Amino acid sequence: MAKPPHLGEFERIARYFAPLAGEDALGLKDDAALIAGPNDTQLVLTADALIEGVHFLPTDPPRDIAQKLLRVNLSDLAAKGARPQGYLLTLALPSTHDEAWLAEFSAGLAADQKQYGIALLGGDSSRIDGPAALSLAAIGTVDAGRAVLRSGAKAGDWLYVSGTLGDAALGLKVLRSDLTVPDPAHRDHLVSRYRLPQPRTVLGRHYVGLAAAAIDISDGLVADLGHLCEASGVAGVIETARLPLSDAARAALAADPALVETVLTGGDDYELLFTAMPTASGAVAELARHLGEQVTEIGRIEAGRGVTVLSPDGSALAVGKGGYSHF
Amino acid sequence: MAKPPHLGEFERIARYFAPLAGEDALGLKDDAALIAGPNDTQLVLTADALIEGVHFLPTDPPRDIAQKLLRVNLSDLAAKGARPQGYLLTLALPSTHDEAWLAEFSAGLAADQKQYGIALLGGDSSRIDGPAALSLAAIGTVDAGRAVLRSGAKAGDWLYVSGTLGDAALGLKVLRSDLTVPDPAHRDHLVSRYRLPQPRTVLGRHYVGLAAAAIDISDGLVADLGHLCEASGVAGVIETARLPLSDAARAALAADPALVETVLTGGDDYELLFTAMPTASGAVAELARHLGEQVTEIGRIEAGRGVTVLSPDGSALAVGKGGYSHF
Repeated sequence: MAKPPHLGEFERIARYFAPLAGEDALGLKDDAALIAGPNDTQLVLTADALIEGVHFLPTDPPRDIAQKLLRVNLSDLAAKGARPQGYLLTLALPSTHDEAWLAEFSAGLAADQKQYGIALLGGDSSRIDGPAALSLAAIGTVDAGRAVLRSGAKAGDWLYVSGTLGDAALGLKVLRSDLTVPDPAHRDHLVSRYRLPQPRTVLGRHYVGLAAAAIDISDGLVADLGHLCEASGVAGVIETARLPLSDAARAALAADPALVETVLTGGDDYELLFTAMPTASGAVAELARHLGEQVTEIGRIEAGRGVTVLSPDGSALAVGKGGYSHF
Repeated sequence: MAKPPHLGEFERIARYFAPLAGEDALGLKDDAALIAGPNDTQLVLTADALIEGVHFLPTDPPRDIAQKLLRVNLSDLAAKGARPQGYLLTLALPSTHDEAWLAEFSAGLAADQKQYGIALLGGDSSRIDGPAALSLAAIGTVDAGRAVLRSGAKAGDWLYVSGTLGDAALGLKVLRSDLTVPDPAHRDHLVSRYRLPQPRTVLGRHYVGLAAAAIDISDGLVADLGHLCEASGVAGVIETARLPLSDAARAALAADPALVETVLTGGDDYELLFTAMPTASGAVAELARHLGEQVTEIGRIEAGRGVTVLSPDGSALAVGKGGYSHF
C-alpha cells in the first residue's frame, strides 16, 4: 500500500543488517533461520510484523488481523517445509483498541492454534500513540538438513505454484475502491483472500525431498521469483498463460486485461512458489492429487540471471522488478 | 512513562492470552518459554518490544535504542540462566528515521553482538505512519531442566539483587525535567542507566544451580518481586535500608527522601532479583566476588502472599502494587 520513499526492504536489509547475520541466518536471504533442534531436527525461525495502515486496514476485523499475523509467518515456515510448533507475540496497541478488540483478536488466534496445531510461547503488550504494530516470531521444526531453501534451484527445474494468484492484490483494490467487481461472490472471494491468507502448511511439509527450492509469495510473484533466482544463481521464466486464476480473478482480467500486472506483482498471495527437477514432475502431480491441493506448473528455471515474463504469444512482458516494498 | 487507561499488562495477558499458552510457555508467567534443544539442552525464548514515546524518547540516540532493545531481552534470558544465542528483529519505522538513523542503529547492534556473543537470525522491516515500533525475539540455551524460573522460591530463602537500583527511573526523571541533579557526573550516570541497561548475562549464567528463583527487574523492584512471589506462592520482604544505591541515587535520595518510592517502583533497572537457600549464602557471596559483580542481600522470602517493604525503623511502607504498566 505504501511506496518506498528511500530504499526497498531488501536493499535496506542488505546494507545494514546482512553484516549482522549469523551463519544460521542464511544470509537473511531466506526469511527464516535454521538452528539445531532436538533429536536430529532443526528449528526454523522467522519473524514478521503487521502494521496498521500498511499491512492491514484499521477497519479490518480483529479476528482476521490476528490470523493474518500468524499465517504470514506460518507461510514462511511452510515454504521451508517446516512443521509449525509455536510463536511469540508482541502487540503495541493504541487506546482505541479496546477490550472488545482484544477479545476478538485472541479468539482469532485461538481458532488458528487449533487449526495449525501450535501454541503461544510468550510475548509482550504495550501502548502506542499511533497505529497498531503487531509482531510475531514463529518456530517450526524440520528434519536436520532437509529444509527447503531459496538457494536450491538449478537450471532445468520446473517452476510450480500452489493455489491461485492475484486474488489478494485484487481484493485490496476492491477495498480501496480502485476496482469494481460486479459479482458479490467474486468480491467476497477476493477480499477474503486479502484479509486471510491460507498458508500451505500441509503442502510445504510434504514437498520436502521433492522441491529443490521454494519461497512463499508475499511480495508478488515476480519479486519473489526474483529472490529465489538470486539466491540460487539462476534465471526464471514465467508463462502468463499458465498462471492459475480463481473465477473471480479471471472475470476481473476479462474486464480489464491490464490487471495481469496486479496478478504478477501485487503480493499478499501467500502461495508457495517452488522448483523441482523435471524427473519429479509426476511425483509433484501425484502429491498435489493426494493432498487435494492445487499445484500448477507455470514456467522454468534456466541458466542466467533475472526473471522473464512471457505473454501468451511468447513475447517478453516488461514488468520491472515488480513486487511490493514497504519502504 | 504512560499510565494505564484500561488494564495492567499482566491482567490483560492473563485474561486474553494465558488460555492460548502452550505447556512450554510456563503459563506466560515467566517472560520466557522453554522448548527442547539439541544435546540435552533447552532453548529459552523471549520477546519484547520497544515503542517510541513509551519505552524510549524520540531524542534518544539510535545506537542506545538498538542496544536497549537487545539488552532488555538479554536480561530476560539472563534471569533464566541462559546463554544468549541469537535474535530475530522486526522494525516499523516512520519516514523521519532516515539512513543515518539506520546506520547508527545497526552499529549499536553490531557492537552488542560482539559484546554478548550473539548474531542476528532474521527479521523484517516496514514503514509506520506513527512512532517507531521495534520488536525483538531472543533465543538462548540452558542445560535441560536447569533454567531458573520465577516459581522456585521457598519460604526461608534469602533475597538478592544485582547492581544498584533506581538509577534508570531517576535518569528518566532527569530527562523529563522532573528531577534536578546538580552534579553532572551523577546526572550522566543516571541518564545512561536509563538509556542503556546492563543485562547481567554473566551472573545469570553462573547462578544456575544456586538461585532457587529469579526475575529481571523491568517493571520495578516491588512489582517484579510480586510476580516472583505470585509464581512461587510465597511472600517477599524487602528492607529499604539494604537497597543497593549508586552514589548518584544516594545523593538524590539525600536531597529528597521521597524518591525511595522511585527506587522501589520505578522500573527499567534490568538487574537480577533472585532467591537462594540460606545455606547458599556463602556460595552466592563467593560467586559475586569471583565474577566481580555487585550482589546484595535485600530481604527474605516468607510463607504467605504479597510483598512487604520495611522502612529503616522496621515499619511497613505502603507502596501499593507499584510497578510500571504499559496499559
